Amino acid sequence: MLNYPNGRPYHINGDKQALKKQVKTKKTDYSNRGMTLESDLNLTNEQYLIAKKAVIHKKPIPIQVVNVSYPKRSAAKITEAYYQKASTTDYNGIYKGFYLDFEAKETKNKTSFPLKNFHEHQILHMRACMEQDGICFIIIRFSTLNRVFVLPFDKLDTWWKHQKEALGKKSIPLKSIIEEAHEIFYGLSPRLPYLDAIDKIIKSKKT
Amino acid sequence: MLNYPNGRPYHINGDKQALKKQVKTKKTDYSNRGMTLESDLNLTNEQYLIAKKAVIHKKPIPIQVVNVSYPKRSAAKITEAYYQKASTTDYNGIYKGFYLDFEAKETKNKTSFPLKNFHEHQILHMRACMEQDGICFIIIRFSTLNRVFVLPFDKLDTWWKHQKEALGKKSIPLKSIIEEAHEIFYGLSPRLPYLDAIDKIIKSKKT
Repeated sequence: MLNYPNGRPYHINGDKQALKKQVKTKKTDYSNRGMTLESDLNLTNEQYLIAKKAVIHKKPIPIQVVNVSYPKRSAAKITEAYYQKASTTDYNGIYKGFYLDFEAKETKNKTSFPLKNFHEHQILHMRACMEQDGICFIIIRFSTLNRVFVLPFDKLDTWWKHQKEALGKKSIPLKSIIEEAHEIFYGLSPRLPYLDAIDKIIKSKKT
Repeated sequence: MLNYPNGRPYHINGDKQALKKQVKTKKTDYSNRGMTLESDLNLTNEQYLIAKKAVIHKKPIPIQVVNVSYPKRSAAKITEAYYQKASTTDYNGIYKGFYLDFEAKETKNKTSFPLKNFHEHQILHMRACMEQDGICFIIIRFSTLNRVFVLPFDKLDTWWKHQKEALGKKSIPLKSIIEEAHEIFYGLSPRLPYLDAIDKIIKSKKT
């Protein structure tokens, strides 16, 4: 059973009229007010799953459980736990036989994307996946401009390595992102058609 | 930084003597007493990662956080949370360009593997990954016999569908598992060489 992030069920085999109505009510979100990149991606992944286009999921946040109480006649309640650092990226899955692995981040910055949004272990993880012939990338959103880009990992890695050099930049200028990334545009279904950008990455891999 | 499950660091570039010593101390576990399938698989995945053979991770357990307290000068403490049902399998990753997706389960049963160890949503998830050309399977361990098998998902799915029929079995007989699955044997590194079985699955896919 799949639900929209607002909790309303998505009727995969339901009548199209009800579906249209649901989609229409989404239209108020079209300007993206209040919606985050994460919820847009979760919706997109549900839409891709239903359309049998891809199977991509966000991984749960790792939590270290220290104490659990077991109240009678109710579910186990975790009473002490702590957030742990993730050792991989947030999203992975499969598309047309390709393994996809990516991280999604937003910035309020208007002119560049700060590299501090990523962690060394995420970079190392994506490098390892690239070596296994996976398709790794980042989805970045300039929230103030409301522009979203898919940047292939090899481009990010070049910027990542450069930042340690004397003249290396600590952020990627928007101008470079426009050149090196694939911009994607909000729609209804899929909400954020990032697989279109992945098709381009796959195509460039083959040539 | 990678650690063995016992918390001791695994020195990827460290001296071989220290590594040998570590591996030797593992020998006491060779009979598998007290070790669970999960910790063996976590160790195996670390070994595969270090050897650059594959990038496979266990997904964190999904937990719904209800309350968090922020004590001064210390980490955020989760004070109320509940376990959630996972919507996918426990493990996924990439090997030689192939997307792998699997679930691992143990039984104390000596003659058959009960199908109730799996949930409908996990079956649906693996079916969806198969449609995208992924490699899906289960790793099952008969803990009393200490025998471990890799069963391709299509075999499991046949048993899964049959159980709903009038004469359908609620568990897979060990005899059938021996015929349909690939048995794997405990070693030092990798601890549970399940990729050897995956090579066979990949080979049979190609023919």
